[in-house]
Amino acid sequence: MRPIEWTGRGARLIDQRLLPDREVWVDCDALEDFEIAIRDMLIRGAPAIGICAAYGLAAASLRGEDLDQAAARLAATRPTAVNLFWAIERMLKARGGDLVQEAIAIHEEDVAMCKAMGEHGADLFQGKQRLLTHCNAGALATGDYGTALGVIRSLARREQVEWVWVDETRPYWQGARLTAYELHQDKIPVRLICDNMAGHFMQRKQVDAVITGADRITAQGDVANKIGTSTLAVLCKEYGIPFYVAAPWSTVDMQMQSGWDIPIEERSAQEVTHFRGQAVAPEGIGVANPAFDVTFHPYITAIITERGVLRPPFAESIRIADAAQQTV
Amino acid sequence: MRPIEWTGRGARLIDQRLLPDREVWVDCDALEDFEIAIRDMLIRGAPAIGICAAYGLAAASLRGEDLDQAAARLAATRPTAVNLFWAIERMLKARGGDLVQEAIAIHEEDVAMCKAMGEHGADLFQGKQRLLTHCNAGALATGDYGTALGVIRSLARREQVEWVWVDETRPYWQGARLTAYELHQDKIPVRLICDNMAGHFMQRKQVDAVITGADRITAQGDVANKIGTSTLAVLCKEYGIPFYVAAPWSTVDMQMQSGWDIPIEERSAQEVTHFRGQAVAPEGIGVANPAFDVTFHPYITAIITERGVLRPPFAESIRIADAAQQTV
Repeated sequence: MRPIEWTGRGARLIDQRLLPDREVWVDCDALEDFEIAIRDMLIRGAPAIGICAAYGLAAASLRGEDLDQAAARLAATRPTAVNLFWAIERMLKARGGDLVQEAIAIHEEDVAMCKAMGEHGADLFQGKQRLLTHCNAGALATGDYGTALGVIRSLARREQVEWVWVDETRPYWQGARLTAYELHQDKIPVRLICDNMAGHFMQRKQVDAVITGADRITAQGDVANKIGTSTLAVLCKEYGIPFYVAAPWSTVDMQMQSGWDIPIEERSAQEVTHFRGQAVAPEGIGVANPAFDVTFHPYITAIITERGVLRPPFAESIRIADAAQQTV
Repeated sequence: MRPIEWTGRGARLIDQRLLPDREVWVDCDALEDFEIAIRDMLIRGAPAIGICAAYGLAAASLRGEDLDQAAARLAATRPTAVNLFWAIERMLKARGGDLVQEAIAIHEEDVAMCKAMGEHGADLFQGKQRLLTHCNAGALATGDYGTALGVIRSLARREQVEWVWVDETRPYWQGARLTAYELHQDKIPVRLICDNMAGHFMQRKQVDAVITGADRITAQGDVANKIGTSTLAVLCKEYGIPFYVAAPWSTVDMQMQSGWDIPIEERSAQEVTHFRGQAVAPEGIGVANPAFDVTFHPYITAIITERGVLRPPFAESIRIADAAQQTV
């Protein structure tokens, strides 16, 4: 399923905050609509955010608006995912040409990349797998098909998925609401768990591999992804389980070496203390709500991209993959 | 605050499912009231469950009911915490005497043990601490004062608590609802986080120590505690942070060597998929909901009991502490 599509003058996107209860599609035309859609997480997932921003700029170009100003506003919506900045930059480079076509190309290329990643990733596995994933790196987080869930979908087509452990992914429940929903629709067996249960099932040898998406990958292979990811990677190290990251090349930030430099978005306390308006915690307490964390490269078994599977040492494999593409 | 008190013919307890929103006290007289209170988690926490079962048997004795039958029914309410079985056994041993007095003694001794643990535990720390705790091992989980929170309370009295990271503790929110509530009432600074955030703050050197309670401790020092505890212990090992367990001696099960033998309670899927009647996940998916996990002894820095602080090798320190008491 595609979470966003071009309407001719803007984009229509599914309000992911309401899934799986309700499938409500929202039309974004004005730039403000796109800003709200990204900032308030009607759409989320690094690649999907990039596609949404591209459509926002395409819509702005149709209205003859100042593109630099529009780009600055869209870039200010969320800080961590680098695909957002990548898509905006690519759109600005195409200015003068047909920006609608460029945005649609970004979207279509993303879908093709997800399918390529799915196949590359699936090649890593032999036999039936009990995979664990965190957050939603699925069709809803991309143009379609997904990154981590793309690999799982490709494996399911090869009949190699025994079941998928789905972390619920607090505080925003992307696992429970979105990943469980996507996989269940595709008839891939789900076992939903709370985030604090993954380690228990790893200890009991019921997890064969972990695969997640990424919001930013640095030149040395450090990965920002949904909060909780780095804990899974530590657990994988402890229990000898492979830890894979699947992401399109647009997630790689060659300008940044170390994961310590990635800005981590802090979101509102309300996301942690309330559920649909109901408090789960007393008022007046301190709360922290970092939306992402950083998994440093020594914890990562391989990074799956549309350019192939990158292995350690990542500084080298990423440099080679980057150079290979630039000479094309 | 005491979560339970003897009324003269039964017990009155605070319905912890409704905290922190509402403070509703429930009277338990009939044996069935006590069974429901424990099984449906109106009262929870290993020591508090033991006290509740003792009061249940005291009430049954006043009514002249068959104590063996009553004991069997109470023992069937929850499988993991050993204090439940310990309290029931102690009550049965006292039969013929005044069982009300015995139950009150169990309660009062628990409070005294918590205070002793608090002081023993506080002695482990120098300077201001940023402590992290999971679930609720507080006054609400005991007769009063708490085990892990008892140590934190004693440290706070010594002005050594900078703040306490409180894991929200899915799926039952004991951290968000109960621990944050208790600490906030005592004016101890709280930073509430989702369970998947602890590793992030450890990585960033913002956690000085982790301290949790326990539901069962084996003779070699393996600890069953709320699901998510073993993950914290793995993270502590990775990041070089001490991991402490605080529990009364009644939590120690000298009959069991290995943590692999501890029965792990599986609770209903609904606890994971629903919040106050509202679904957070699609219908028809698989769900796992183990209520506890096992932290094996190599991950544990020290076990704090009312008999003192036990250090590795735990098989030896536990054996010595057990023998010391039996000769008294």
